[in-house]
Amino acid sequence: MEELTSLLQASCPAPRPERERIVLGHGAGGKLTAQLLEELFLPAFRNPALEQRGDQAVVGWPGGGRLALSTDSFVVTPIFFPGGDIGSLAVHGTVNDLAMGGARPLWLTAAFILEEGLAQEELRRVVGSMAEAARAAGVEIVTGDTKVVNRGKGDGVFITTAGVGWVPAGVELGPERVRPGDQILLSGTVGDHGLAILSQREGLGFEEAIVSDSAALGPLVEAMLEAGGGGVRCLRDPTRGGVATALCELAERAGVGMRVEQEAIPVREAVASACELLGIDPLFAANEGKLVAVVAAEAAERVLAAMRRQRLGAEGRRIGEVVEGRAGLVTLGTGLGGTRVLDRPWHEPLPRIC
Amino acid sequence: MEELTSLLQASCPAPRPERERIVLGHGAGGKLTAQLLEELFLPAFRNPALEQRGDQAVVGWPGGGRLALSTDSFVVTPIFFPGGDIGSLAVHGTVNDLAMGGARPLWLTAAFILEEGLAQEELRRVVGSMAEAARAAGVEIVTGDTKVVNRGKGDGVFITTAGVGWVPAGVELGPERVRPGDQILLSGTVGDHGLAILSQREGLGFEEAIVSDSAALGPLVEAMLEAGGGGVRCLRDPTRGGVATALCELAERAGVGMRVEQEAIPVREAVASACELLGIDPLFAANEGKLVAVVAAEAAERVLAAMRRQRLGAEGRRIGEVVEGRAGLVTLGTGLGGTRVLDRPWHEPLPRIC
Repeated sequence: MEELTSLLQASCPAPRPERERIVLGHGAGGKLTAQLLEELFLPAFRNPALEQRGDQAVVGWPGGGRLALSTDSFVVTPIFFPGGDIGSLAVHGTVNDLAMGGARPLWLTAAFILEEGLAQEELRRVVGSMAEAARAAGVEIVTGDTKVVNRGKGDGVFITTAGVGWVPAGVELGPERVRPGDQILLSGTVGDHGLAILSQREGLGFEEAIVSDSAALGPLVEAMLEAGGGGVRCLRDPTRGGVATALCELAERAGVGMRVEQEAIPVREAVASACELLGIDPLFAANEGKLVAVVAAEAAERVLAAMRRQRLGAEGRRIGEVVEGRAGLVTLGTGLGGTRVLDRPWHEPLPRIC
Repeated sequence: MEELTSLLQASCPAPRPERERIVLGHGAGGKLTAQLLEELFLPAFRNPALEQRGDQAVVGWPGGGRLALSTDSFVVTPIFFPGGDIGSLAVHGTVNDLAMGGARPLWLTAAFILEEGLAQEELRRVVGSMAEAARAAGVEIVTGDTKVVNRGKGDGVFITTAGVGWVPAGVELGPERVRPGDQILLSGTVGDHGLAILSQREGLGFEEAIVSDSAALGPLVEAMLEAGGGGVRCLRDPTRGGVATALCELAERAGVGMRVEQEAIPVREAVASACELLGIDPLFAANEGKLVAVVAAEAAERVLAAMRRQRLGAEGRRIGEVVEGRAGLVTLGTGLGGTRVLDRPWHEPLPRIC
């Protein structure tokens, strides 16, 4: 009998736990997240707005004009970190998703899932910093909800924000507008948010040196659109999965290749050191106040100059270009003639950073 | 030294844990929830739309027309229950909040917080029933987000939906429109959702007899508004805290008293039995497919007739009226001349039912 059991076990296909159970990687922004979207959410909810698959949906408002809608849940741990907290992050994350669609953020909703036992003082700090971030970004938090779950069924505080923005007439952004020859711009250093969280969490001793870049990108986007007009093709904020994942997804959706240069991508010294210590590639680490832009070649200089006049784009630069080639193939020039293919990981090594 | 410590402890004021720590009651929809809103959220986020303090915010869209916005997090346990699951509930809850403002729900966002280890098959069922509920309610789920938290830091699945709706010209609903002499209508039996959840959770043996009333109220509201026009003053869906809490809040905000008759309020037999067993008043138990309407006396017959022609209002009836008197004072006629004051509880006895 025991023999039969082991024989059966040996001949049965091995279970594929990552397909049958939710694992941390499903929320990390890499291929598992994409798979869940493709195989589970999209087939169930199928509609044209959802299939745009941007960070926001753009729909026509019956009264006139176009409206952008976005949502994100924030589950970051720890909830306080250098450069922000889960409250400011919950505002910045959603207004940035709207801004990437060229929308001016107008209103936010905020829903809180609190764990029994959370100190009210911590909640007060989080809510205060949300309010401050909303004021600075020019949006109003107009409605909300609070639920409390039993101790051990949550983790302090989770916040879900949804945002509504106005898409001005003439603004058209999307991967379908990307063409070979377009230039790829990046607004500043990479990995600051991800490594700020990880350093804090692991007690690496970099805590003071690495500060999250969490910030609202609306003014930067407006300046870029004003300077570049229709020459700005598509914008992405490289959050979970970092710049590498954002580029891979964008190249895939646009049906083009991309070539970027490693030495053009700025990384702060403390971030680079922490990455080395942890064995993490900063190109895959999260950002919460940066953007990647694909811009027509003839508009690139103008848009870059406009970026650099903004505080959040002061370190902006050209990092590469869109090329003909296999859809989704992103290559990284590593200097001295070397080249590396960037690919989205299945399991991202940085869970719960946003 | 020990004596000194105990002396100090004795003379210090006792800590007030419900003010310093989040307790389950803060999420139960009663006075603690209201306190958190008053003392923590409103002062931080202060703006005119939020101060409407309805289940939805109504704002003017720059392109024309008025837009209603609403959000709710759903943390119900168990996630599957007779009459629905967390997915259908997450759709109904938010479209109903929009409908209570007289808005036609158009779009939803959906954000998932999944616990590591959740069976993908369960998620698939939940998502399927969300999609079905959305189709039935005529709304599209246009954008979403997925996060995964470590095992033991969540509870299977939490869903946060936000909704955007169109408020037709001429529709004006709100507690400020309520007047003494107005009639109070209720669309059907009370307590079905709360007791369906509790029976399932406690294994009471009523599981088959008690089915959640979770349903989308949009068509019922449209029929009522068509029949009653400006005579419909204000609508509320009595979810957390039940009909009693909804009436108390509404009376307080409207600055009026209310008088309702217990025998006019229908309770299914199985719900009444379960309530008796658990020591719960069905007036305080949650509903997810019912509404309370305050209607001008001259329009009440018309509106009630329109309600009763709708499937979800077939058991609709008049349960009482708005009276002069202390703002927020709701009295319940208990038959044989008896009267009881309905008051919102501090700690509601039914956590995590929605």
